[in-house]
Amino acid sequence: MASSQAPSSAPSAIDKIPRTERGRQTLRKLLDAAAKEFGEKGFHDASISGITRRAGTALGSFYTYFDSKDAVFRALVQDMSGQVASRAGSAIAKADTAFAIEQAALRAFLEFASENKEIYRIIDESEFVDPQSFRAHYESTAARIMDRLRSGAADREFREGLEEAHAWALMGMNVFLGLRYSVWSDEDNAERISAIANEFLREGIGRR
Amino acid sequence: MASSQAPSSAPSAIDKIPRTERGRQTLRKLLDAAAKEFGEKGFHDASISGITRRAGTALGSFYTYFDSKDAVFRALVQDMSGQVASRAGSAIAKADTAFAIEQAALRAFLEFASENKEIYRIIDESEFVDPQSFRAHYESTAARIMDRLRSGAADREFREGLEEAHAWALMGMNVFLGLRYSVWSDEDNAERISAIANEFLREGIGRR
Repeated sequence: MASSQAPSSAPSAIDKIPRTERGRQTLRKLLDAAAKEFGEKGFHDASISGITRRAGTALGSFYTYFDSKDAVFRALVQDMSGQVASRAGSAIAKADTAFAIEQAALRAFLEFASENKEIYRIIDESEFVDPQSFRAHYESTAARIMDRLRSGAADREFREGLEEAHAWALMGMNVFLGLRYSVWSDEDNAERISAIANEFLREGIGRR
Repeated sequence: MASSQAPSSAPSAIDKIPRTERGRQTLRKLLDAAAKEFGEKGFHDASISGITRRAGTALGSFYTYFDSKDAVFRALVQDMSGQVASRAGSAIAKADTAFAIEQAALRAFLEFASENKEIYRIIDESEFVDPQSFRAHYESTAARIMDRLRSGAADREFREGLEEAHAWALMGMNVFLGLRYSVWSDEDNAERISAIANEFLREGIGRR
C-alpha cells in the first residue's frame, strides 16, 4: 500500500476521523496492516490482533477508529476503492486526449494492482462480507468512466451515444486485464497491456 | 438451472459417474439443488442436508457422488462453467460470421446469467473456497475466446495480431455486462446489451 497516502475512506466506515498528523499516520498504518491481514488470511481467519500486530499499534488505537472486524473491512474496501480512483486521477491529469486518458487510467490501475495484489481478493470478498461496499465500488468506478466517456464525446474524440453499458464493458475489460496481467503475473507489463487495450478502444477487433 | 441438461462436470470432482439415466437425473438434481443452496447461503452456511432436502433425495444418494461439501462445491463450479460453455456453444452454432458468433455467445451468456443469477456468487466464491476451479473457469473461458479470435482472423474478419490480452479484455467485458444487466437487473435486455457490446468490438468507441 502507498503508505504516504492519506486514508481516502468515506467518513461512514470510520468511527472517528483523525485530527492530527499522528492520528492520520496511525489510521493509515492500521488500514495498510488490514490490507495485508485480510489479503493473506481472508475475512474469516483475519483477526483484529493480527492487524494491530502488523501495524505495530496498541489494541486501543484500533478501537479509536473501528468498533469491529466488519468495520475495518468496510473501511478498507472504501479506502482501496478511493486509492484506485486517486491513482487513476493523478495519472489522468497528465494526459491530453480522451484516448490517452483511458490508457493512463488503465496503466495506473495495472501498476496499482501489481503493487497491491491483495486488492482483488479484498474487493472480491466484499461481495460476501459487505455487499453494499462491493456494489458501491463498481458503481462509482463505472460512473467515473461514464463521465470520461461523456467528456470524450463532447470533445468529439469519442462517438456520440455512448452509454452506461459502454462504461461497464470498459471497466470489465480493465478489471480482467488487471487480474490476468497484474495479480496473476509478476511481469512488468502495464505499458504493453494498456497499449493493447487502448488500440481495442480505438479500433475494435475487426479487420480494416 | 437447466435441469434437462446432463451434468457437464469433469470426472475429477465427482466420485462416481452415473451409469443409468436415473443416476444421471439424481446427480443433476443434486447439482441444481447445490446451486440454490450455495447461491442463497454461501459456502460457509450451506449444508449437505440442505442440498439433499432441496433435491428431494436421500443422504445416501449424495454420498454416492460426493464425499464432502467441498467436493460438491467443486463439482458445481465445474458444472456451471461447463453449462456456460455449452450454452455459448449451442448459440454459436447458428451464427455465420465471427462478429455474429461473439454476439450470440454474449447473448446466450446474458440469458443464462439472468436465469441463474446465483452463478456469479458461486464462481466468485470459488476464488476463496476452491481457487483452482476459479482459475480454471476463467482460463478455459479465455482459451475458448482466443480460439474464436484466431478463427475470425483466419477468416479475415478480425484483424491479425489479436492475442491473449484481447481474449481477457473481451471476457471481462462480457462478465461485467452480465453482472450489471443480468444479475443486478430484472429487465430482459440480453439482445440490446449484446448488440451494444458487438458494436464496441466492431468499431471501438472512437468517432468515425
